[in-house]
Amino acid sequence: MVKQERAARTRHALIQAAAAVFAEEGFVTASLSTISRRAGVSNGALHFHFANKSMLAEAVEAGAAKAVRDITEAASARQGDSLQTVVDATHELMGALARDIVVRGGFELAGDCGYRGECSLRAQWQEWIEDTLRGAARNGALAEGVSWADSARVIVAATAGFEVLGGDDASWLSRQNVTRFWDVILPRLADRRNLAGLASAGTWPQPGIPAQDRSSLRASTEQ
Amino acid sequence: MVKQERAARTRHALIQAAAAVFAEEGFVTASLSTISRRAGVSNGALHFHFANKSMLAEAVEAGAAKAVRDITEAASARQGDSLQTVVDATHELMGALARDIVVRGGFELAGDCGYRGECSLRAQWQEWIEDTLRGAARNGALAEGVSWADSARVIVAATAGFEVLGGDDASWLSRQNVTRFWDVILPRLADRRNLAGLASAGTWPQPGIPAQDRSSLRASTEQ
Repeated sequence: MVKQERAARTRHALIQAAAAVFAEEGFVTASLSTISRRAGVSNGALHFHFANKSMLAEAVEAGAAKAVRDITEAASARQGDSLQTVVDATHELMGALARDIVVRGGFELAGDCGYRGECSLRAQWQEWIEDTLRGAARNGALAEGVSWADSARVIVAATAGFEVLGGDDASWLSRQNVTRFWDVILPRLADRRNLAGLASAGTWPQPGIPAQDRSSLRASTEQ
Repeated sequence: MVKQERAARTRHALIQAAAAVFAEEGFVTASLSTISRRAGVSNGALHFHFANKSMLAEAVEAGAAKAVRDITEAASARQGDSLQTVVDATHELMGALARDIVVRGGFELAGDCGYRGECSLRAQWQEWIEDTLRGAARNGALAEGVSWADSARVIVAATAGFEVLGGDDASWLSRQNVTRFWDVILPRLADRRNLAGLASAGTWPQPGIPAQDRSSLRASTEQ
């Protein structure tokens, strides 16, 4: 049991270290010895868990895919097919890109032309945005004349932009930046009757953020 | 004179080949012999023009930066500080990313963690968007309650997204995709009185595109 726990901890440390090295150096340059050193384990321990660099990359991608799935499933469970669901999930995903090195590493691998993985994080995110907005349109939550498909493309493009620009400048991933994006976008996408009920800063319970800071949209539309 | 022409042609072929190889394989993997073979010149000719791979990358970035400058300067000269200027330039830049391998290669290098260049194409584009929208706001072209800075961030993020997603799926760079983006965005950003005069498909003279296809926004807002 203790042995199993130690093995799981080593595996976890290797995936974290690999994600950081892939994000900083790219897949091609990343060396297994840099990764094992960073994880604080021997090369032998690395090879016990991962036969080669591609298998480490697959583990990073799988970890990122699971994080994206957790974020989108939790948002859908809380808010159903609505614009608020998408707002909340974009805040969560950008927060994960800023804080969780496995999520950052997974998306870096998705855009790394030195690595061709099987897993498409961006496609996973895009499909969920499309499904949720299709449902929101069915529920009458979108403004007249705005298609769910066009709305999805705007959101998918902007979030891909935040992800990429956020690699150099983390302010693109900040709560404030994502809130401002939704302050601009929601009045165009949302059905008029729903707009006042939407919080562009998200409705996710976040420790340390006073509730009044989450309703900048409502404040700005009431002016 | 003939000698100078031949040298210029060889240099041009090397930059094109380098841009293509950087875009496909990334900076680290790209080899000088792949680049010279692709350009149809000897390794010696490559080394006569470029001392090393970084100097080739700098030439690709400089070529892309010039293309971006040409696009933005021409748009500004035609339309001044207006939303139409930004619409036109985004169409042109996405078209250049689809058609001009030096522009594609330059932006790939900008996002390549294996290469750290001096030149920042994305910053150049962002500054121009900000300057133009600041001017448009001064001219009363923006809707009330919408700030030029927030508008700029939405456009910069979305175009960075198109650029990155377009590397795998060129439809993100298409005229149709960019037009749909503006169909969603313009009614939110533009002053009501200006909206009918804006063409989300761009006003750039483009050979082979009938004029009526350029006014989808006008058509959709008249419904």
